Amino acid sequence: MKIAIAGSGALGCGFGYLLQKKGGQDVTLLDNWDAHIQAVNENGLKITVNGVEDIEEMKMCKPHELNEIMDAIFVFTKSMGLKAMMKSIDHIIGEDTKVICLLNGLGHLQTLQQFVGKKNIIMGTTVWTAGIDAPGVTHFNGQGPVELQNSDPEEKEGALEIVDILTKSGLNGVYSDNVNFTTWRKACVNGTMNALCALLDSNIEEVFASSTIDSMLSGIITEFAAVAKLQDGIELDVDETITYLKGLADSVGAHYPSMHQDLANKRPTEIDFLNGAVVEISKQFNLEASYCKAITDLIHAKEDTLGIKK
Amino acid sequence: MKIAIAGSGALGCGFGYLLQKKGGQDVTLLDNWDAHIQAVNENGLKITVNGVEDIEEMKMCKPHELNEIMDAIFVFTKSMGLKAMMKSIDHIIGEDTKVICLLNGLGHLQTLQQFVGKKNIIMGTTVWTAGIDAPGVTHFNGQGPVELQNSDPEEKEGALEIVDILTKSGLNGVYSDNVNFTTWRKACVNGTMNALCALLDSNIEEVFASSTIDSMLSGIITEFAAVAKLQDGIELDVDETITYLKGLADSVGAHYPSMHQDLANKRPTEIDFLNGAVVEISKQFNLEASYCKAITDLIHAKEDTLGIKK
Repeated sequence: MKIAIAGSGALGCGFGYLLQKKGGQDVTLLDNWDAHIQAVNENGLKITVNGVEDIEEMKMCKPHELNEIMDAIFVFTKSMGLKAMMKSIDHIIGEDTKVICLLNGLGHLQTLQQFVGKKNIIMGTTVWTAGIDAPGVTHFNGQGPVELQNSDPEEKEGALEIVDILTKSGLNGVYSDNVNFTTWRKACVNGTMNALCALLDSNIEEVFASSTIDSMLSGIITEFAAVAKLQDGIELDVDETITYLKGLADSVGAHYPSMHQDLANKRPTEIDFLNGAVVEISKQFNLEASYCKAITDLIHAKEDTLGIKK
Repeated sequence: MKIAIAGSGALGCGFGYLLQKKGGQDVTLLDNWDAHIQAVNENGLKITVNGVEDIEEMKMCKPHELNEIMDAIFVFTKSMGLKAMMKSIDHIIGEDTKVICLLNGLGHLQTLQQFVGKKNIIMGTTVWTAGIDAPGVTHFNGQGPVELQNSDPEEKEGALEIVDILTKSGLNGVYSDNVNFTTWRKACVNGTMNALCALLDSNIEEVFASSTIDSMLSGIITEFAAVAKLQDGIELDVDETITYLKGLADSVGAHYPSMHQDLANKRPTEIDFLNGAVVEISKQFNLEASYCKAITDLIHAKEDTLGIKK
């Protein structure tokens, strides 16, 4: 299968590497970072998967340099880069090209549908983690799973095919009837832990020990649950979700989540695809999500006061 | 007139000093800070008023050590200290003792009414500023005014008498028909500038330059205006208030307001008497003030993560 990785940062490289090396697929890495592309083209991709180092020769270029219709495209951009990436890969999407999206956050299906028919969109979630150590040098950790589901109820066959390829590539593909629920659940995690730690400049343990944690979790999750139900028919039980979040917080402890690291490293956050998305969806249903709006406004103000370019 | 200053920090000392020195009143400073009381008793109050240094012998003791009914009591505690102070001065409040409250924030009239008849409560605002340099050593700056209004519409006479005393003491007393509006207006200032600068660890100029400032101001002020109207019949025009706040921000510039300083110095903030009060009043009218609730929860969480004792 001709597979493109649209956005070959750490996670994209990890997927592309395993799809080619273990899965035997014809993979092209796409990205816009010159130094990274140059390093991979000159030296191959240097990647460490669960502690095992390897160097793999891989095709890598900028999106406009690839001129072939793909069978499948995995999008691995940052949330805010998805739309621009889709514009730049429009010419490699054919009638039957499957587009697989494992991004965290809300609203991506709507963005993808501007470029791809719903029948070809496969949404999913993953718990693999990854990092870039230098241009052309990445690491990739975990065991999966990668949960996938066809967006169009008629198109399960296509999703199962991708699940099969992922499993053969060691990526632990799993078909799920409930990807939408998992996506909302993950959004609840990120819309609380991520956003609060970033705003309070504290780690998860500190934030969850604060006197107002119940009020903060309930303020956020109540608004997430209202729009999950209205937009997607997903039932998020507020109390159960809060219990889940507290259990998760206990298990991760004194960890600084990614949005905190974004601010610390002066990168824009993905708040518009979490709490900010809930605010936007609420408007469509003539509701207000004022708690999430405050969080979103404050995170953007924090980005601004830190001088982060958007 | 026998006057007690209930809470003789920087502002209380400034008022007490001028009431005695220029106004010729019989003033007793009350406070609970041992070193401060000892310094004033041993060396007099060392005070600098608008740059002019003076030393004034003043009576100062703890609340329980004063055993005389007062004619008037000025309360100058922190907002969260008002209730405890009122309990501790109950024995010096007589049938006709006027209690004058110039504290910033919301909800103080309700607290005072637990201890004093409404007919004897005079509410007000002041723009004098002050600081403590060391125990017994303070400074006091400004020109006033001190706006006062009787809480009970029948009791204007009593308020006018205090206004007269303030003016004779150089404190620029002014009778106002609109103290409640001014109080809400100041609460809008503190509930936006103070709270946002504290949360974002930024100064007023930085916060007001952020891309979400309009949304933040409107989120907060809309909720303040709703309860000002419902509880007190006060009309706060949201757009006009926002314009006023932006003008004020322009004029003060790169200043860190008091709540930011509270957090920096590991002191609890007065958020419960600003945005937090709006949340509580909203509940009484079966409304939600979710934007202010988020701000309040976050400030308390910030106090907690900084290890501030409450």
